[in-house]
Amino acid sequence: MALNPFFLGRLIAIGGNEDKANELVVLKRVVREIGKTDYKVGVITTASEDPEQRGKEYHTVFTKLGASSIEILNITQRTQANDKKLVKSLENTDLIFITGGDQLRLTTILGGSQVLAAVQSRLEAGALIAGTSAGATVFSDTMIYEGKSEDGLFKGSVLTTSGFGFVEKIIFDTHFMARGRIGRLMQIITTNPTCIGVGIGEDSAVVLKGDGVAEAVGTGQVIIVDGRDIGHSNIMDIKPGEPIAVENVRIHSLVNGYGYDFKKRQFLTSTIK
Amino acid sequence: MALNPFFLGRLIAIGGNEDKANELVVLKRVVREIGKTDYKVGVITTASEDPEQRGKEYHTVFTKLGASSIEILNITQRTQANDKKLVKSLENTDLIFITGGDQLRLTTILGGSQVLAAVQSRLEAGALIAGTSAGATVFSDTMIYEGKSEDGLFKGSVLTTSGFGFVEKIIFDTHFMARGRIGRLMQIITTNPTCIGVGIGEDSAVVLKGDGVAEAVGTGQVIIVDGRDIGHSNIMDIKPGEPIAVENVRIHSLVNGYGYDFKKRQFLTSTIK
Repeated sequence: MALNPFFLGRLIAIGGNEDKANELVVLKRVVREIGKTDYKVGVITTASEDPEQRGKEYHTVFTKLGASSIEILNITQRTQANDKKLVKSLENTDLIFITGGDQLRLTTILGGSQVLAAVQSRLEAGALIAGTSAGATVFSDTMIYEGKSEDGLFKGSVLTTSGFGFVEKIIFDTHFMARGRIGRLMQIITTNPTCIGVGIGEDSAVVLKGDGVAEAVGTGQVIIVDGRDIGHSNIMDIKPGEPIAVENVRIHSLVNGYGYDFKKRQFLTSTIK
Repeated sequence: MALNPFFLGRLIAIGGNEDKANELVVLKRVVREIGKTDYKVGVITTASEDPEQRGKEYHTVFTKLGASSIEILNITQRTQANDKKLVKSLENTDLIFITGGDQLRLTTILGGSQVLAAVQSRLEAGALIAGTSAGATVFSDTMIYEGKSEDGLFKGSVLTTSGFGFVEKIIFDTHFMARGRIGRLMQIITTNPTCIGVGIGEDSAVVLKGDGVAEAVGTGQVIIVDGRDIGHSNIMDIKPGEPIAVENVRIHSLVNGYGYDFKKRQFLTSTIK
């Protein structure tokens, strides 16, 4: 149990719809972050309802981006999630990429499985884990999986469950500006201001590096929702469905090259030291 | 020129889609705020593309709400906006209600007109002015009239012009949660943190009372966007179309009965003194 936002290892959370055809700003950064040219990728397509198609797309992209080996894991049911061959295929991966779709598919199908244990173990061994959309949302310990944007500030409208927990007390939300999701993060942060909300825009990402510092990448914004100054809120006094009042939520907008220090809760104009 | 957010007179800004059929929480409050039972209403439907229909709707509602006299002003062109009979019809009104539609229709058709002068003069004489959606947005001196929600944090995506200016340095935006408009207000506040953004939810309103204090009313939220703590922003350094970085925007969510003191920039759990 973290009393402060916390993460270990190297993670890249992408806000969805990253460019796969033109500039590839975000995906090129993912590859650069691996730190070697001769790299092995594992792609987990479980979140998608059409994993085969999704797998092909990322196979094409990572081929273009020079991967030396690409394993596509189209796991669609729990029995496969303990398949020794699939677990073995993640061995020595330098990058594990988790595609978008529905984050509940990821947790229900991979939760408690050998494949997920293998991902965790690659993370601990220093491999880079990247995820986009649902694949990024699942990084959180408290994972948002449902909630209409316009209802975000009505109590109980944002449903969460336990995610993969690669980070603790950091709540990722994706497609953030495109879907106007600020209310969802404000609700979660109001219920526990220890948590910091990270709303990632499309074709944008945050690079987490293990020292508590995140860097924003891409063509859009990464919004930080920090509740440390919250004064009054009515969340304990109202029933589900009633509107939430809250005082003093602190918001930052980060763009490409800007950073955020999760330990100090500090906005950074640059992550270069 | 106000160096601080400022308003005179009695104003109610409604976030659009206020209930006209069931509980009428917002419209009943409008009527209660007039302060008398025998009241005369003028309705300005200029923002609407179907003013006749809109006029009929509000005639029905205000009849139900006990108005003793209702004047519907279906002004659709500038020549009518100086019509002496129409100007005279606003005399002795206790409430002037400005309907929704497109706020640019309001400013282009009524700007500089005798009818607008009559509205201003009723405001100064103590009548209540209420507006919904476009009819509320136009209260601002710097009036937002265009800007996709998802692009709100890209420089230049939010178009503003001069509004009716019943309030200074307070920027109203409406349909706020339903359309995820936080980025629009963040952009305007970043360009000049003297301004305070007020994002009004649907079936919700703010009652402004002349002492600098606003009260939230209705079934949703009123979001305050305050830039007083803004540290860094890149807005001067980037070109139109580029994403905006900004540090420390302060957000409050007010619900029915909560208030905000614009002079002190202070969240209030109640406006009862």
